[in-house]
Amino acid sequence: MKVFHYTEVENEPAEQGAVDTYVRWLITEETGAPNFSMRLFELKPNGYSPHHEHPWEHEVFVLEGEAHVVGGGEEKKIGPGDVIFIPANEKHQFKNIGNKPLKFICLVPIRP
Amino acid sequence: MKVFHYTEVENEPAEQGAVDTYVRWLITEETGAPNFSMRLFELKPNGYSPHHEHPWEHEVFVLEGEAHVVGGGEEKKIGPGDVIFIPANEKHQFKNIGNKPLKFICLVPIRP
Repeated sequence: MKVFHYTEVENEPAEQGAVDTYVRWLITEETGAPNFSMRLFELKPNGYSPHHEHPWEHEVFVLEGEAHVVGGGEEKKIGPGDVIFIPANEKHQFKNIGNKPLKFICLVPIRP
Repeated sequence: MKVFHYTEVENEPAEQGAVDTYVRWLITEETGAPNFSMRLFELKPNGYSPHHEHPWEHEVFVLEGEAHVVGGGEEKKIGPGDVIFIPANEKHQFKNIGNKPLKFICLVPIRP
């Protein structure tokens, strides 16, 4: 097994189109995972991810902060303990609406 | 998308061999997930999961509590923010060693 604290993993700026958004790739193929990857996202106050879509799903669990999530034309407020499932090809976005960092776990398949 | 709080999902007694251990199946095939399921486990103080193995991996993120995790012959102390990867076919166990509930997210492939 592998055991480590999430803060031991580098916090990298997220993809193009994201603002004040960082990502730690916690569990990946390099860790030995065959099927899906675990990432931890951190968005500063007013940070947001791009409003985009792609042919793979997201499974999300919110750890800290207050946000709006956009998906399938809806916009919902989310906070700690909320679970979000975004199916493949659904346009979505995360926006930090609080004054503290927003942190959530987001899992994706390794081979969509 | 689907959005809900984890406490909206039924907290069921976990599989045989687990003691004082409950599980909420947060995201499953029924939710629309094609590849992997998200569960939230809750172990009461002194609760533990069976010391077992199976042909699929676990990806774990600890939310609350103090525990020991056993895997590959090692035993390590874990707490909030710790990440655990347990590969397929590795014997493992989670044991709550604190005086509060242990809560962690554990993801598994839908078709191992």
